Amino acid sequence: MTLTLTPISRIPVVNPGDDLVVLINEGLKRDDISLKHGDILVVAQKIISKSEGRAVNLASVRPSQEAIDLAQKIAKDPRLTELILQESSSVLRTRPGTIIVEHRLGFVCANAGIDHSNVGASNKSEQWVLLLPEDPDASARRLRERLEENSDVSLGVLIIDSHGRAWRMGTAGVAIGFSGIPGLVDMRGQTDLFGYTLEITQVGAADELASAASLVMGQAAEGRPVVHVRGFPYDLREGQFNELIRPEHEDLFR
Amino acid sequence: MTLTLTPISRIPVVNPGDDLVVLINEGLKRDDISLKHGDILVVAQKIISKSEGRAVNLASVRPSQEAIDLAQKIAKDPRLTELILQESSSVLRTRPGTIIVEHRLGFVCANAGIDHSNVGASNKSEQWVLLLPEDPDASARRLRERLEENSDVSLGVLIIDSHGRAWRMGTAGVAIGFSGIPGLVDMRGQTDLFGYTLEITQVGAADELASAASLVMGQAAEGRPVVHVRGFPYDLREGQFNELIRPEHEDLFR
Repeated sequence: MTLTLTPISRIPVVNPGDDLVVLINEGLKRDDISLKHGDILVVAQKIISKSEGRAVNLASVRPSQEAIDLAQKIAKDPRLTELILQESSSVLRTRPGTIIVEHRLGFVCANAGIDHSNVGASNKSEQWVLLLPEDPDASARRLRERLEENSDVSLGVLIIDSHGRAWRMGTAGVAIGFSGIPGLVDMRGQTDLFGYTLEITQVGAADELASAASLVMGQAAEGRPVVHVRGFPYDLREGQFNELIRPEHEDLFR
Repeated sequence: MTLTLTPISRIPVVNPGDDLVVLINEGLKRDDISLKHGDILVVAQKIISKSEGRAVNLASVRPSQEAIDLAQKIAKDPRLTELILQESSSVLRTRPGTIIVEHRLGFVCANAGIDHSNVGASNKSEQWVLLLPEDPDASARRLRERLEENSDVSLGVLIIDSHGRAWRMGTAGVAIGFSGIPGLVDMRGQTDLFGYTLEITQVGAADELASAASLVMGQAAEGRPVVHVRGFPYDLREGQFNELIRPEHEDLFR
């Protein structure tokens, strides 16, 4: 079966309070896509965050002494450093310009996923940044419920971001929240063609789909923040995002 | 533009010396796919390794004292441990059953990517394992040249494996060699919708495509080891695999 990933065309720039379901449904209609059972919509975290009002004007941030000290050490804006610390449960590593943290949502990423680009201040002298959604699983669930109501089919919704990786250059799309899809697909107990039990026991299916969709979204374009997926090869189920988080005591690389 | 990933149907079990170009061309014909300019064929490392005779009978391996000592410490077969050390340039971490290494090909992975499954011994009491290809970039280049000759169009070829990750559970498809595609796509100098310079400067496009194709291949099935890709959104070019390797001195997680 073919897996197809189609960016929804001409999703407009999203502003706080915008209803993404309306924007997505308008896009699907424009592109003549009618949702079928098992389809998945992959949404860039950026438009979730913007619609949920997660943009912060750096002028409004008062950095703590901890943030001021760290910011000086790594040559970063102390106000941005403050936001990164607020959004994180711990700091793993630092280097000039970058703080690798465990985000309060559980995953490890650079600078708490806080983004400068495509935030769009009304006044060019203002500096706005965008925090990740408060609760991406809940955002995904709300989107999914309303998209399912409108379409009368079972869907999955996946919210993705682009993260750097240990050991390898370049970013890759990863899941930060979802509803109605598996995080991991468990292959334990399955045997290979020759009857050996498989050594690879769990596939990070939600992350693999996130990378696939990220490829289609590109990076510069807020113009392609929603991707329609058909042909996801695993059964849909009520996955939990924290399936994807390696427990700290099992992690050799913290 | 839609990205489509289609597994080639009924690729037979591959044996040493088999000509993958013949198997792929037969599959494409059977599935009525004619290659077009810019198409990419993604191939599982397993069938590359098998066709290149990279299966090793563990009975033929004589472990060094270093391998015997390490094997005892982590409760692993000393012969397999020997092969892992031979295939690696350094050991990063160990835990029971697992050795995280820098593979001689440059990337970090568990157990030097040596696989037990789907190797298929003629005698069930024999234990065979499969090493990664000697030079996956060269394997990809050879495949590509012959596929291009046959089809008279410009193609990409990507060889993938499934790796575990730091911080996250589950495996994801990653590139281990390629020809005719970019490893990284550089976004530096591009600006966002509002004129800010992008912070994400390099996308691991080959790895994102590897994850996408891995999703379609599944894990158990040697039956879907080749995926035809149409609509890759970036320009094809002569990428180098080592674009994807983070230099050790820049890596905070070794």
